Amino acid sequence: MKTYLDCIPCFFRQGLEAARIATKDVEKQKKVLDEIARIVPEFSLSSTPPEMGRIIYKIVREFTNSSDPYMELKNKYNRAALRLYPKLKEKVKEARDPLYTAIKIAIAGNIIDFGVKNMASGGFNNMEKELESTLQQDFAIFDYAEFKNALENVEEILYIADNSGEVVFDRILIEELHRRVIYVVRGGPIINDATMDDALFCKMDEVAKVISSGCDAPGTILRHCSEEFLSYYRQAKMIISKGQGNYETLSEEKKNVFFLLKAKCPIIAKDIGCKLGDIVLKDNLKGG
Amino acid sequence: MKTYLDCIPCFFRQGLEAARIATKDVEKQKKVLDEIARIVPEFSLSSTPPEMGRIIYKIVREFTNSSDPYMELKNKYNRAALRLYPKLKEKVKEARDPLYTAIKIAIAGNIIDFGVKNMASGGFNNMEKELESTLQQDFAIFDYAEFKNALENVEEILYIADNSGEVVFDRILIEELHRRVIYVVRGGPIINDATMDDALFCKMDEVAKVISSGCDAPGTILRHCSEEFLSYYRQAKMIISKGQGNYETLSEEKKNVFFLLKAKCPIIAKDIGCKLGDIVLKDNLKGG
Repeated sequence: MKTYLDCIPCFFRQGLEAARIATKDVEKQKKVLDEIARIVPEFSLSSTPPEMGRIIYKIVREFTNSSDPYMELKNKYNRAALRLYPKLKEKVKEARDPLYTAIKIAIAGNIIDFGVKNMASGGFNNMEKELESTLQQDFAIFDYAEFKNALENVEEILYIADNSGEVVFDRILIEELHRRVIYVVRGGPIINDATMDDALFCKMDEVAKVISSGCDAPGTILRHCSEEFLSYYRQAKMIISKGQGNYETLSEEKKNVFFLLKAKCPIIAKDIGCKLGDIVLKDNLKGG
Repeated sequence: MKTYLDCIPCFFRQGLEAARIATKDVEKQKKVLDEIARIVPEFSLSSTPPEMGRIIYKIVREFTNSSDPYMELKNKYNRAALRLYPKLKEKVKEARDPLYTAIKIAIAGNIIDFGVKNMASGGFNNMEKELESTLQQDFAIFDYAEFKNALENVEEILYIADNSGEVVFDRILIEELHRRVIYVVRGGPIINDATMDDALFCKMDEVAKVISSGCDAPGTILRHCSEEFLSYYRQAKMIISKGQGNYETLSEEKKNVFFLLKAKCPIIAKDIGCKLGDIVLKDNLKGG
């Protein structure tokens, strides 16, 4: 997905949010915004938004002397999600269609990013509330037949992660896939995205082979990815891509990717062809 | 009110919105954002947001070759508001406290700005719906006793206008004040703010002396105002200031100003000490 003009005000909003998490020093926060202002005119709209996201968070790290501003929050998400794990397993066990319910749970995990502000400012009650409401919500796009058909025909799945905490919800789905899974995390700290530390903390290595994409953007920019990741990617016959950032960077790829996400941004929703707040399981090759 | 860091993403959002109203050319829209990005680091946070607003809309006019992008919209607002005038008069006539109802109506007119997007894209039904809901809404801050007391003791009121269309709603209040009123419009086209053309179109000159502030910002920046306005301002014993832009530029003045507005921006709401969506009639000198 290309960068729309609407993304530009949002770059500043995101930069400010991250700067405020990294430091209380308003002058440093202002410098972050000034530096984003310096970069924006040079940034090509044909690039994907996570390419700018990567630059923004690099600026935040540099100007606030903070290598991983979201670390504390990520740990909180991970712990809160792990506490939910037995309950999530129970839901799948009781389900008429366990795979369907596991997909729903995996997508419910995608709300964690959405709630950053609320979660930063206090309780994690929202996580459970959002989980319940997502479980009730119907999919706007649901290529379930294609998903099950692809699943039938592969032995291995490349599963590209999104946020910390969400890892636990992904584990629920991975345990229902009954396939070998390569679980891909970001190459370095970026916002609250899942890194190797998060995957290991959530014990993802017990059910999947965990690798890094080698890319520290809030998405999967192939030309920044490691050779290890790219060799898995090239061979992959089925890819599950979680969240908006991976959609933004992979939506134009001619690969068998299933995008599993909640549309939290109106511009991405429009690009997908759904509404803000919708949940989708979208087969990238269908109708294309 | 000073400029908060939260205003910076919003400057870009406003610039994009105005650029899109002025031109369909995406490259020109991008150039507007690039130019705002060039200016932002130079802009002092100790200035008020309308000072940047003035610069932004100057950039929009220059880069899109459009001297008054909102002209068509302003005419629509004016006509729609004029159609409501008899109904508004009726409401005051039927009211137990006509002055109170007229204040409510004047503040309801302040929603016109809020609805720019909806109004640009079609019907004006929202104006009537918002009017009814504002009439039902309680004030969060309501210095009515101070207002009535000030009114008792003056012969002349300086009334600083906000948006086009809203002028008709202001007229309703002015007709209930039973005082000589100097009605102040912006010195030049800026967003959908009321200018001399709007005041005359809405026949404000029948009930008040209409003057220009001499300032073409979306607010009243005193050092940019004309000597004519400033002489009225200095002598004024009671000022009614409509809307957010006038609040932002006059909130730190030691004058007998009554701010009459709906808080449509979370940052302004916080500065006032109310919540987003609240309506207020605030005596600037009270408790200060």
